[in-house]
Amino acid sequence: MFENSEKTNIEKIGKNKLIAHILSLNENKNPQVIVPPGDDAAIIKFSDNENLVVSSNIIVENVNFDLVYTPLKHLGYKTVTTTISNIYAMNAKPEYILINIAFSSKYTLEAIEEIYSGIYFACNKYNIILAGGDINTSVKGLTLSATAIGKICPNKEVLRQNCKVSDILCVTGDLGAAYMGYHLLEREKRVFLATPDFKPDIEGYDYIVSRQLKPEARNDIIELFEKENILPTSMTDLSSGLADGLKKISSKSKIGFDVFEEKLPIDGQTLQLANEMNLDATMCILNGGEDYELLFTIGQIDYEKIKNNIDITAIGYATSNEHSCNLITKDGSRKEIRVLN
Amino acid sequence: MFENSEKTNIEKIGKNKLIAHILSLNENKNPQVIVPPGDDAAIIKFSDNENLVVSSNIIVENVNFDLVYTPLKHLGYKTVTTTISNIYAMNAKPEYILINIAFSSKYTLEAIEEIYSGIYFACNKYNIILAGGDINTSVKGLTLSATAIGKICPNKEVLRQNCKVSDILCVTGDLGAAYMGYHLLEREKRVFLATPDFKPDIEGYDYIVSRQLKPEARNDIIELFEKENILPTSMTDLSSGLADGLKKISSKSKIGFDVFEEKLPIDGQTLQLANEMNLDATMCILNGGEDYELLFTIGQIDYEKIKNNIDITAIGYATSNEHSCNLITKDGSRKEIRVLN
Repeated sequence: MFENSEKTNIEKIGKNKLIAHILSLNENKNPQVIVPPGDDAAIIKFSDNENLVVSSNIIVENVNFDLVYTPLKHLGYKTVTTTISNIYAMNAKPEYILINIAFSSKYTLEAIEEIYSGIYFACNKYNIILAGGDINTSVKGLTLSATAIGKICPNKEVLRQNCKVSDILCVTGDLGAAYMGYHLLEREKRVFLATPDFKPDIEGYDYIVSRQLKPEARNDIIELFEKENILPTSMTDLSSGLADGLKKISSKSKIGFDVFEEKLPIDGQTLQLANEMNLDATMCILNGGEDYELLFTIGQIDYEKIKNNIDITAIGYATSNEHSCNLITKDGSRKEIRVLN
Repeated sequence: MFENSEKTNIEKIGKNKLIAHILSLNENKNPQVIVPPGDDAAIIKFSDNENLVVSSNIIVENVNFDLVYTPLKHLGYKTVTTTISNIYAMNAKPEYILINIAFSSKYTLEAIEEIYSGIYFACNKYNIILAGGDINTSVKGLTLSATAIGKICPNKEVLRQNCKVSDILCVTGDLGAAYMGYHLLEREKRVFLATPDFKPDIEGYDYIVSRQLKPEARNDIIELFEKENILPTSMTDLSSGLADGLKKISSKSKIGFDVFEEKLPIDGQTLQLANEMNLDATMCILNGGEDYELLFTIGQIDYEKIKNNIDITAIGYATSNEHSCNLITKDGSRKEIRVLN
């Protein structure tokens, strides 16, 4: 029958490079597209006063989640929050979401209801409307695909590309918690599978577990920017770790960053479990991912307006050292920050 | 660990009922949503002069397509056309599409490029912009999920619910071809799998094969409506067969239909293969699906404007016989049209 050629192993390329390559194949550049795909979200012209901000996300069973320890309600919730997080990361407000679900015959009506109860719960909390979606069967496993649509006034969008040398680098909340939550759940799963009558013990680690299973999006920060009339010079959400976020902004803005290890915000539970598991806490922050906090840069004048906010931490500043992100360690030495694949 | 209850077998419910049930779980009705999910697309208020039309679609390997005979380029093309077809079915014009893809490690870069070449080809042909999307790995198989976004002026949308008694029932193009294309490809696949050196013979059936593998959306009909200032009283696209389309309009509009078997438009290839395979051609039209033609109803005055169009066929009319769709067979007898699951 028809032959599909097989040549280049895709795993060697990496997701970011693959997306950039696919986008480069499109010869049809359109002036309606103000910010093309490749940032957290795309921005497209809609009317004179408002633009659309759109972003899509697909998550797959046993790649992005494990149903041994993920409640379906949390999975529905996380599908919404992780998708709208991309819209907030443009300094925009999501308004609508469409969610497609494909599931195998092992899923019951009650299981699907659980997923949707989480979806509706998140929609109500973030004031988003579920505006559609498709349901389909799959041969194996569960796949959820979501598209969020938001609005933004022209020139209010915050991209990755406008950070200037000396801008202050800030991050919201704390980092590394979702990653440690993942490690804890995986450890308990291994014990559970070996001894099925074992009751998992996650006491004392409720915060990091919830950060992994039920992450929140930072709508509050976007509202703060609006209230204080702050326009960051660049922004992204931290879905794949701080190192990845730094790389995204520094390469688009053609600057570098100096980041101070001692400033990195970390919760006590994250630190405690990292110590217990002999993991380097700074490595967890740099490469852990799934925190869905906002990483942004701002000028000195805007920084004055938020410097006392306990939920925002200045962790460094932009340098002219193009593409070079460095960690100033607690002992004062300088280490290049690399993105681990 | 966490337990997900298992009770009701979802296969017994059916897709349309399941979607209706899920939508009924949402307690948060929003006035911004002008047409809620459940029609071909949802319509949401965006500005005073224009509304957004949005629709989503998810297709899964070995459920919706078979890569033994589906070229990846055609698969990308079909993902676009079948999704934007839902927007046209609202009498609206799609402008943007976002496509998420999850694929297993067996897919090479060249394979993904093939899919995107089909996506871009369809986008260029229909003047749609690929405005984003996510790429992810899957444990097994290929899943494509698409969301189309269009615009429509208030009161120009055509829903399923406003058909009146005596309105004329029309369909575009011909029906049953995609279904017979599927049967042909499946037959050739069975022979190919049994005797791998066999060369598939689809000569003389190029039209029905292309209807299955590379369906088009009916943008031309929506442009005709605009040019002729025609507003159908109801419309849907035929993704699941004529019987399903009739049921969707009749139940929403609370009317019935009398459909004349002798009027049903069928291509010579469809008829020939149906005869060859001992299949009833009318059954193929009623329950075949995947034609992506438009089924619509219009009043007598509008009908006069299109009655000589060779690409539109009047196949019946709306009756007061609520929910009852009847086929007036070639021998003059009357048979109830039922949707087969």
